[in-house]
Amino acid sequence: MQQDSSSLQQSAGGASAADARSRLAADYGRVRALSEQLCEPLAVEDYVLQTAVETSPPRWHIAHVSWFFETFLLRPFLPGYRVFHPRFEYLFNSYYEQTETGFWPRPERGLLSRPTVAEVYDYRRHVDAGMARLLADCADEHWPMVAERLAIGINHEQQHQELLVTDIKHNLAYNPLKPAYREDLPQAPAGDPDAAAYLHFDGGRDEIGADLAAGFAYDNETPRHPVLLRPYRLADRLVTNAEYLEFINDGGYRNPALWLADGWAAVQANGWRAPLYWEPADRAREGDLGSADAWRQMTLGGLRALSPAEPVCHVSYFEAEAFARWAGKRLPTEAEWEAAAAGAPVTGNCVDQGRLHPMPAPARTAGGGLRQLFGDCWEWTSSAYLAYPGYRPPAGALGEYNGKFMCGQMVMRGGSCATSQDHTRASYRNFFYPHERWQFKGIRLAEDQQ
Amino acid sequence: MQQDSSSLQQSAGGASAADARSRLAADYGRVRALSEQLCEPLAVEDYVLQTAVETSPPRWHIAHVSWFFETFLLRPFLPGYRVFHPRFEYLFNSYYEQTETGFWPRPERGLLSRPTVAEVYDYRRHVDAGMARLLADCADEHWPMVAERLAIGINHEQQHQELLVTDIKHNLAYNPLKPAYREDLPQAPAGDPDAAAYLHFDGGRDEIGADLAAGFAYDNETPRHPVLLRPYRLADRLVTNAEYLEFINDGGYRNPALWLADGWAAVQANGWRAPLYWEPADRAREGDLGSADAWRQMTLGGLRALSPAEPVCHVSYFEAEAFARWAGKRLPTEAEWEAAAAGAPVTGNCVDQGRLHPMPAPARTAGGGLRQLFGDCWEWTSSAYLAYPGYRPPAGALGEYNGKFMCGQMVMRGGSCATSQDHTRASYRNFFYPHERWQFKGIRLAEDQQ
Amino acid sequence: MQQDSSSLQQSAGGASAADARSRLAADYGRVRALSEQLCEPLAVEDYVLQTAVETSPPRWHIAHVSWFFETFLLRPFLPGYRVFHPRFEYLFNSYYEQTETGFWPRPERGLLSRPTVAEVYDYRRHVDAGMARLLADCADEHWPMVAERLAIGINHEQQHQELLVTDIKHNLAYNPLKPAYREDLPQAPAGDPDAAAYLHFDGGRDEIGADLAAGFAYDNETPRHPVLLRPYRLADRLVTNAEYLEFINDGGYRNPALWLADGWAAVQANGWRAPLYWEPADRAREGDLGSADAWRQMTLGGLRALSPAEPVCHVSYFEAEAFARWAGKRLPTEAEWEAAAAGAPVTGNCVDQGRLHPMPAPARTAGGGLRQLFGDCWEWTSSAYLAYPGYRPPAGALGEYNGKFMCGQMVMRGGSCATSQDHTRASYRNFFYPHERWQFKGIRLAEDQQ
Amino acid sequence: MQQDSSSLQQSAGGASAADARSRLAADYGRVRALSEQLCEPLAVEDYVLQTAVETSPPRWHIAHVSWFFETFLLRPFLPGYRVFHPRFEYLFNSYYEQTETGFWPRPERGLLSRPTVAEVYDYRRHVDAGMARLLADCADEHWPMVAERLAIGINHEQQHQELLVTDIKHNLAYNPLKPAYREDLPQAPAGDPDAAAYLHFDGGRDEIGADLAAGFAYDNETPRHPVLLRPYRLADRLVTNAEYLEFINDGGYRNPALWLADGWAAVQANGWRAPLYWEPADRAREGDLGSADAWRQMTLGGLRALSPAEPVCHVSYFEAEAFARWAGKRLPTEAEWEAAAAGAPVTGNCVDQGRLHPMPAPARTAGGGLRQLFGDCWEWTSSAYLAYPGYRPPAGALGEYNGKFMCGQMVMRGGSCATSQDHTRASYRNFFYPHERWQFKGIRLAEDQQ
Repeated sequence: MQQDSSSLQQSAGGASAADARSRLAADYGRVRALSEQLCEPLAVEDYVLQTAVETSPPRWHIAHVSWFFETFLLRPFLPGYRVFHPRFEYLFNSYYEQTETGFWPRPERGLLSRPTVAEVYDYRRHVDAGMARLLADCADEHWPMVAERLAIGINHEQQHQELLVTDIKHNLAYNPLKPAYREDLPQAPAGDPDAAAYLHFDGGRDEIGADLAAGFAYDNETPRHPVLLRPYRLADRLVTNAEYLEFINDGGYRNPALWLADGWAAVQANGWRAPLYWEPADRAREGDLGSADAWRQMTLGGLRALSPAEPVCHVSYFEAEAFARWAGKRLPTEAEWEAAAAGAPVTGNCVDQGRLHPMPAPARTAGGGLRQLFGDCWEWTSSAYLAYPGYRPPAGALGEYNGKFMCGQMVMRGGSCATSQDHTRASYRNFFYPHERWQFKGIRLAEDQQ
Repeated sequence: MQQDSSSLQQSAGGASAADARSRLAADYGRVRALSEQLCEPLAVEDYVLQTAVETSPPRWHIAHVSWFFETFLLRPFLPGYRVFHPRFEYLFNSYYEQTETGFWPRPERGLLSRPTVAEVYDYRRHVDAGMARLLADCADEHWPMVAERLAIGINHEQQHQELLVTDIKHNLAYNPLKPAYREDLPQAPAGDPDAAAYLHFDGGRDEIGADLAAGFAYDNETPRHPVLLRPYRLADRLVTNAEYLEFINDGGYRNPALWLADGWAAVQANGWRAPLYWEPADRAREGDLGSADAWRQMTLGGLRALSPAEPVCHVSYFEAEAFARWAGKRLPTEAEWEAAAAGAPVTGNCVDQGRLHPMPAPARTAGGGLRQLFGDCWEWTSSAYLAYPGYRPPAGALGEYNGKFMCGQMVMRGGSCATSQDHTRASYRNFFYPHERWQFKGIRLAEDQQ
Repeated sequence: MQQDSSSLQQSAGGASAADARSRLAADYGRVRALSEQLCEPLAVEDYVLQTAVETSPPRWHIAHVSWFFETFLLRPFLPGYRVFHPRFEYLFNSYYEQTETGFWPRPERGLLSRPTVAEVYDYRRHVDAGMARLLADCADEHWPMVAERLAIGINHEQQHQELLVTDIKHNLAYNPLKPAYREDLPQAPAGDPDAAAYLHFDGGRDEIGADLAAGFAYDNETPRHPVLLRPYRLADRLVTNAEYLEFINDGGYRNPALWLADGWAAVQANGWRAPLYWEPADRAREGDLGSADAWRQMTLGGLRALSPAEPVCHVSYFEAEAFARWAGKRLPTEAEWEAAAAGAPVTGNCVDQGRLHPMPAPARTAGGGLRQLFGDCWEWTSSAYLAYPGYRPPAGALGEYNGKFMCGQMVMRGGSCATSQDHTRASYRNFFYPHERWQFKGIRLAEDQQ
Repeated sequence: MQQDSSSLQQSAGGASAADARSRLAADYGRVRALSEQLCEPLAVEDYVLQTAVETSPPRWHIAHVSWFFETFLLRPFLPGYRVFHPRFEYLFNSYYEQTETGFWPRPERGLLSRPTVAEVYDYRRHVDAGMARLLADCADEHWPMVAERLAIGINHEQQHQELLVTDIKHNLAYNPLKPAYREDLPQAPAGDPDAAAYLHFDGGRDEIGADLAAGFAYDNETPRHPVLLRPYRLADRLVTNAEYLEFINDGGYRNPALWLADGWAAVQANGWRAPLYWEPADRAREGDLGSADAWRQMTLGGLRALSPAEPVCHVSYFEAEAFARWAGKRLPTEAEWEAAAAGAPVTGNCVDQGRLHPMPAPARTAGGGLRQLFGDCWEWTSSAYLAYPGYRPPAGALGEYNGKFMCGQMVMRGGSCATSQDHTRASYRNFFYPHERWQFKGIRLAEDQQ
């Protein structure tokens, strides 16, 4: 992917209307193609499964993103559009209460064998054909609304591409045969990363939130607003598996003093003793789990040795927070993270690189700076996902996109190896419940500047 | 199927050893073929689903029945047999605790996409090839044990064919699109059945249980033993949908006085107000449900009008028992049923007829006699599933086949439209928990002779 | 208690009407007094607790038995009777669906602090006063119905006395302070019992069920009817703690081959590794549990050493059945038990003896015979609790007393150390779910006569 | 209570050491006495109950607050102190993982009848005697630590007094007899409050958090730190029952567009259709619930008519948030609330007034200002309960007091009719899960200044 061909990280400001339209059309095509590419390694059977209540079957994702375009663009704006199937609205709406038909219960998405995968791809073709007509013929008076929704729809599909990857990983990891998604995924280079350095930030009065003039952003990144920050320091790379193993070996999962009350309850209820997808290597199953080679890690490339240098991944907020306490540090707030990331180039080990696994931190460069900011793993912050001052959700069903989840979840920043590079940015707010682990989620430490 | 070509309803007694061997080989081939025939209408996606904890994915059935032959015949008796895949024993063992590897948890059979359907059919081929070698080459000294286990394996696969059909039905019924398994299934002929007649039986001292000289039977049908019966009367046909609708209309599901305590609890916990697979026809969804045309019934042929003349089906023991109380009757005991069925021809609307749905009772013949004894619907009895006096399970893992379920379940008799005709008989004891409804289960009424 | 003063084990046949009336009045007074005696050791706080869904708070029992007399005798038969409190019917009805008001949910009986204990005793006084008037003034035309219900009410209160004792035990055992109900309960004498002998019974055609001419019996013991029994043998005493400990030490709780499928599931779900109320003695908590002194047992006299000679108690059907399989024996059927017990004197370690704990078997007498038949522990049979042939429940709400539980439960025989001696008999059928352990439940082994 | 006799709202700064000691001693005595006063109306039975997992039995509170003094003051600081009972530490520790013994599971606090209430009061006496000795004899070198912990212990008991009141209310409301805690509680005066006015606040740079020089505060109120606020407006009184009824009548509980996703899930899972403790008045049970007289409200004075003028109370965060959205407003942030409350007199309808129920807003005064800031109902804010910048919990088990709950809960401000007046202040941060309703929780609306 070439960044300069994308509308997603650019302002629409300077472009002519025709340019904007053709760029959106190109983005649409490119993003839609990626969804199908990501599914290429799947067997038909793989499309059907839902192995956790928070995941969805791949087929559902493939259909749902099409439903989004059908519902918010084709039905309202394409004259004469024929709905593909009258029940698909019910089956493939995710959670929009303000559409008319309700939706099939989320925990039961894996209990449906029809429509078949082939039928769902037919649905995709049908929607793509409609979208081609809409992009070609959309009346100028509708274009602003269409363009706005189209940008949301494209970004929405990118979000589901990430979920597609992580849900496939969950499904395959659940299987005792531990099948690989792709046998040919590259391995991490050997070698240890240098020690983390802590970079100083002055804090003071700063600004966070999306600058809408600078390109697409979700409603929850707005309004841009001032914040006050105390001086702080951020680790210049993510916590590694080797470091996390020290926490485990020091009894991290057995010491309640390290944990939030809800976190300790989760440790006990779920029997956590390592990140998700770590499992004892066979020969050590009953014995010592203190070294990296006592563990294997399920990856999209199959079950692999645990690489000490890679960032620890698939940890819950509770684990990230306990690890930070154990390390004598803390997690950054989202404002600290964003202020530190402002101006950094948005590049990294994203889905575009095709690795689909976090990589060890690159060597520190002469200029210094934060490493692994974008890509690799989403980074837990200590900020609850709440409305920014003055935030207002859009009217109608699209107002449900982000606003109604502003309770009980924590903000994550930076994107992962399953995120499209042009889908992340310094102001991007991802959010998850503190117990959730199935996304690529890692840890960057922070501390107060004394 | 021609009865005289089958070993399953005949004594092995008079036949030569070679005959017996070739007849078992033929049965093996015929029964194995039927499993695949029954799967022909399925899409790949249909093989993966498990929509209730007591059902299994079709793919699992297809693999499990092969695992049975591999485990109990090929591994112990075929020299040089190569196990197809080392983990399949773990994945496709159902519940045999005395095999070495344990088994994948039953409620999670639908959470696996691999092995693929194609791989499972490869497994089948591999086992079939092994079985062909075993049947050809089995040493005479092993033959008696092989023959005994082969008969069990063939019967076992027939049992799973019935589950295959009922589990497919459950999966498709769960889907709001209500897809048909086969569009071409025949409809019931129109018309009402004649009223049920109650046939008198003298009772007294009788005998029940399998006569092992007469052909294959499961261990749980033995030993044959004497029983004492009071004079009783049995309805000469099954209860119909029309009759059951009267029970509903009379407030059957709202009147606790009609129900066993556990039954009333089940009604309330599950919100039952009709048999499984009945649903209000659209136009009546909010209104009166008192007539047959207010309801539709999901069948393997899709969603159909409720036929008043068909036997009511997919009722729990609790519903059968409550209906009987409401009707001023009772359910038969298994001894009453078997004594009455002794000598009756084992024919009926079985899976061999390919209807896959219970049919209205045939017209009463001049000779009278009980109608619908075999096929159509399994018939609830008031007998708990317990050991017959003197019963002993076989040694080893095969002893788990029937014996360990002798608690908490009720006996059903007669077979259904999903049972192979040569798989049922007067002494056959099927057993289910009293709340289960997904099999083809119906009601025959009984009463004391006053 | 003197047996000859009791109506409960005698036929009402030969007595004059006045005699019968005065005997019932005396029984009423005696049984009511025992309920209060059994509560004497309680603190007010002890009356409120419900520590398992199948138990009830002592206060609830005390009120419920009064509600029974109020509902079935005073309201219909005592002219001018004033109901004590309009909401008590709702609060203290147990499960009678056919009364008008419904009932407070059973699992929440321990969530009520009012009415207070004192108010409940006022309610008792009020009902007793009403009953005195009814017994004095009841018109002759009503007497037969009153007498019949009065007998049921007295027996009903005796049943609740047993529950009172076992529920108090459960409540106190739940408390980590392990408070004794009574500090002064006698200990078992030291010494080992002689080995169990197996007594032969011919079987053949026999009769079981209550002979109504012989005295009070519940509906579920009727009708008396013939049975066929194969020759069998019964152990002449109950299984001891020492014997059960061998089963534990032999890995009984870890070997699925010994268990019914539902039993093995219960072992795993509940973490069973010993009978209810056994707990490791402190010094052995982490070590070897293979000897009797490694265990303590909670009793109504507090936490005590485990006596090897006492009958094992507080085992589920699953445990009894697994133990029998391990021992190469089986459990008796209820018909075998009753046929063997017919004619035996109904005496034993019952609540009347005030021990409230099972005792080691008495020494074998010259005449032989079954020991510990009545009292000590209820004995699990292998019979499901079902209707006898020709059974009909009484009309109305009292028909719910026994009939609606005839599904999913197993029959127990003989009575326990918490049963009134005049409340048990050879034909008495107690019934519990196979997982329940909180009653005094033990094991008598049986085997086929070879 | 006279404010000037209390150490709790004053700085310890100017006082002499002796004064401070005697004032703390007086506070100790006064606060301990109030706990017992609050229990005076209870029957012994009332002390035992736990009717929700988040509540505790009154007896448990009475013991736990004593355990706190025993554990954190008497054991470490009183030479020769004899622990009252060796198991009480286990029974009455609430959640401190860093003490040695663990604790009895919270959801099972209502399953214990011993120690009796009388024994728990003995325990209190024993602790009080110890505390008297400690206060008299404490060495000067220990005094600063003792004084600090004593202040925490006194405040801790005040917190439990509030829980005592709300847990008693929950227990009594659960009972279908609806018993009053006190029959003599005053009723609200009749009449409607004036309409709410919205008061303007400039925002800008402000400071929040406790000024430790000004008196006791919890660790979670520190450090005091600057915040940036946009201009905002706050309603000058709480939302009334009449206003909330409009929300209900407008279909508030049926319209998902008004709710957070988790809130809508809670509405459906719990069947919410009104605040906790509202119930239909009998005559309206099946009919229209649109007017205040169609509802009754359980109060500590028993079941009463719903007063339209009283503040709506016992609402969850979800309900408060949905109401605000419906009203076109929002909830205040905790910083907005605290900035607005700074300097306001800390007086109101607190537990000191003995009303134990929120009261209608007093008439607006000439000077204006926010009404009902303190007392009446805790006010939901839109702020998640998180650490203030630079927050550090104390070392050791007391560090668990507040810090480990900083996840998943929302901040409430202002105190309620069950809070001691000298236990609340502008900086006080109370916190609850968003679904919890059993505290006195109400709603103050806010909006952006346009």
